[in-house]
Parts: sequence; C-alpha cells; structure tokens
Amino acid sequence: MKGKQKNKIMNNSPIGIFDSGFGGLTVLSAINKMLPLENIIYFGDTAHVPYGTKSKNTVIKFSKMITSFLIKQEVKLVVIACNTASAFALPVLRETFKVPIIGVISPGAKAAVSASKNKKIGIIGTEGTVNSKSYFKEINKISKADVYQQACPLFVPLVEEGWTSGEIVDNVVKKYMKPLLNKNIDTLVLGCTHYPLLSKSLKKNLGTNITLVDSAKATAQEVKSVLKQEFLFANKKRNMKIKFYVSDSSEKFRIIGRRFFGKKMSYIKKMEID
Amino acid sequence: MKGKQKNKIMNNSPIGIFDSGFGGLTVLSAINKMLPLENIIYFGDTAHVPYGTKSKNTVIKFSKMITSFLIKQEVKLVVIACNTASAFALPVLRETFKVPIIGVISPGAKAAVSASKNKKIGIIGTEGTVNSKSYFKEINKISKADVYQQACPLFVPLVEEGWTSGEIVDNVVKKYMKPLLNKNIDTLVLGCTHYPLLSKSLKKNLGTNITLVDSAKATAQEVKSVLKQEFLFANKKRNMKIKFYVSDSSEKFRIIGRRFFGKKMSYIKKMEID
Repeated sequence: MKGKQKNKIMNNSPIGIFDSGFGGLTVLSAINKMLPLENIIYFGDTAHVPYGTKSKNTVIKFSKMITSFLIKQEVKLVVIACNTASAFALPVLRETFKVPIIGVISPGAKAAVSASKNKKIGIIGTEGTVNSKSYFKEINKISKADVYQQACPLFVPLVEEGWTSGEIVDNVVKKYMKPLLNKNIDTLVLGCTHYPLLSKSLKKNLGTNITLVDSAKATAQEVKSVLKQEFLFANKKRNMKIKFYVSDSSEKFRIIGRRFFGKKMSYIKKMEID
Repeated sequence: MKGKQKNKIMNNSPIGIFDSGFGGLTVLSAINKMLPLENIIYFGDTAHVPYGTKSKNTVIKFSKMITSFLIKQEVKLVVIACNTASAFALPVLRETFKVPIIGVISPGAKAAVSASKNKKIGIIGTEGTVNSKSYFKEINKISKADVYQQACPLFVPLVEEGWTSGEIVDNVVKKYMKPLLNKNIDTLVLGCTHYPLLSKSLKKNLGTNITLVDSAKATAQEVKSVLKQEFLFANKKRNMKIKFYVSDSSEKFRIIGRRFFGKKMSYIKKMEID
C-alpha cells in the first residue's frame, strides 16, 4: 500500500495503550501531551492486576487478549504502557499482530544511556521486569554501561494506597535504594509506570547527583517517530477522544486513575477479556 | 440417602480449599492439624491474586470457576480460605453448588464474640472485605457488639515481600491501628488469611490487652463439625495427601508458600481456570 493511501485510510484511527491497571496512565499523559490530536483507547487490566509478580506465560496470555481487543477497536498502533508486559510480551505481540507495537523498555533504555555520564545505570522495577533483565539487554545493545537492578515490590502497593510521601515511604525507598547507592550510579531508570509518582521521595533520598529517567516521555517520542514514519498521524483538528476500558469495576478506576492521569476520565467502560 | 451409605461413598474424598494465593495456606495448616486423616486439594488463584482490591462481581466470577474445578476433583466439602471471597461469593457458591461450603467469616465472627469482654471488636481486612461489611453483619447476628473496621491494603504486599518485622512494618501497623486503638477495642479479628504472619508486630504495637482472633482455627473447627454432622469423615488410617493447584507458575508458589504452610509442598501443578 502506498504512503498516501495508507495515510488516508489509517490516520484518524485511535492509538491503543494498555497496562495492568493504573500505571500506564502516566504514559498516556505523556503521549496525549506530545500528540494532542490523536484519539486514544486505553485498556487497564484491573481484573488481573498486578503483572509484576506474575509469570512470563501468564503476562503474555493477558497481553495477547488485550491486544486482540484493541485491534478489534481498529487501533493503528499499540503501546504496551507497562514495563513487565513490555519485558515479557513485546516479541510475541509483534509476531502475532500486524500493527506497529511499541514497548516502554527500549525508549527508557535509550534515554538512560543518553543521560548517564559515568555509565553506571540503576534500574528499578517489578520482580518480573528485573528477572527478565530486559533493561540490561537493551542498554547493552547500545552501550557498555554497567547496569544494576533492584526489584521494589512494595512501590506499586504504596502508590495505589496513595502513600507517596512521609516517613514510611522514605524508609521503604531508602531500603530499596541502598544497594544501588553503593554502586555509584549517576542515572536511575524508573522501570515501572507507577514509579514516577514516587519521584519526590526518590529524589530526596538519592540526592541531586542521580538523574531519574521516566520512560513515559521517551515512549511518547517513539510513538511520534513511528506515526511519522508510517504516515499515521491524525490529520484533522477536531475533538480528540480518550476512551478507557477496564476489566474490573470502573468505579475504583475512576477514583484512583485520576491520581495518575491528572484529569477527569469521562468515558470508562468495563470489558471482560477472558 | 442413609447416613451409613453416604459415609461409605463420600468419606475418603478430599476437602477442597481455595484462596487467591498464599494466605489460605494458614487455613489449610489449621485444618490439616485438626483433621490429619483428611485428603486435601488446595487451589491458589495466583494468576488473579489479589482479590482484596477487586470488585464483588470479579471475585464471584473467579470463585465460581475455582469451585467448579474443585467439584470436578470430587471434593466432599469446599472451604473458602479467603476473607474477600468469603465476603463476596459465599451465598452465590452455596446457591450454585451442592457440596457443603464453608467461609472464614462466620467462624471468625463467632470466635471474636466469644473472646470479647467489652464487646468492642476491631476488624482488619482488605478493602473488599471491609467494604462488604460482612464481619459487621455476622457479628451483629449474634451480639450487639460495637464493630470498628479498618482496611489495611499494605499488609498483604508486606507479607508477600517477606517483611514481617522491623521498623517499616511497625510503622505501617501503627498507622493502620491508630483509629482502632482510639475506639478502646479489646478484640481484633485478623480478617485476612495473610495477617497471622504479622501477629508479632500487631501484638507489639497493640499491647497485651487486645486479643487477636485468627479465623483459621475457628474455620477448622467448623469444618470438623460439618464433616461430623454430614457423616463425611475420612475413616481409614492411610497416607494422607495434600495436592496444590495454582493458576500461575508453580515455582514462586513453592518458595513463598513455604513461609505460610511451614512445610514442603511436594505436589504442585499449574491449572488455568479461564
């Protein structure tokens, strides 16, 4: 199909974004900010959340079901706005589906390499992301940096409980960061889409010499590049729509989601995928 | 069917026990201790864990799928070894399936009323259990006690991370317990099967005047009563078997499960239910 034709047919279709629940809303916000004309469909798999403590096969199964749903909604591109799902499911999804699929790990890895001067990079993420060594592999494709990983399983529950500052949070942050601080890192990748909500405590406890890399912005940049390359930009000024689907009740999503998205979500629908 | 015949046909069938994951292993241990001749099949829904933050409809859906699986394994009785699932799904499961079904809430409520002298009872549990007000309703069926509830969403992740003592745990415990201490309770129901692993910190921070009620033992007593009443006791001395099924990878279950069960689990199989 020629570029022009493709452009004409595809460009006003929505971008599909999915995550295990709320975290991906930080990625959605970054994409919405960079590409304000694009329609978006967001899927939060709140019936199966969290992904970070689950096995590769299970996360792949959920990711395939969601991507099938998004493809049925005629999305022109899929963003895996979850580090664990990006780590485990990206290759399988690219093999299975024809639309361009973008994960958060490769953009985050590139941003970390750009940011680091001493090439000692820390990665924090869920158990799944850390065990997959995906950031380690992506960074080592482009740089000989030393990569140090730390799983932080309590960060997601803390953020979902709404505890993002105070003594308890600072003490949990200190406990998880201690091994990384010993490694003299100058850059830390927030390898889970919940973690940007803990930036303040992380900055406070890590000091000013360590740069925090949030892959949301880098991922939005990657989405923009792919849309440009594939002639998929939305080309009309009109009312942009963001639709939210969740696999569990929409009520809780509406309340907690606002903390991540920062705006009211007007269209939220429950959609069972299994 | 006459008692004797029923006895002959049914009695060596296994007891089915399920939970969203690991917590129910504390109930399994209590049942195994009280009824050491009984075969048991345990189902941990680790692909969907946790239940405590999910909606009633979703928890009912998972509970029905698991109970169907257990019935296919010819269990003679089902124990819902999870407070959230007991709160949300017990009535529906009893309507849907013919075997006796026992939850943890009614036994826990009875034990709390027996233990309390001043009839000021605290309940701690997941968001789901607390929002269902199930303990409140069960206690009020048998006593005019004052019931005070507190959801403690961080307790499950702390226990699963293996953090059951130390400053962070004590501070989280203090934060959640403060509103209950202000109510002058003399009894606290551990309304989640993970919480017995935090007993030490709870006792330390609540003082010696408050009795902790763990529904595991009370539930085991209830199972014993029903087996007796329905002529369902296992009647032969032989090698008792406990089989474990999980909906996600068996590896993690083997490792973390040991913390809850206290013994090695020799038979663990992955079984997808959706």
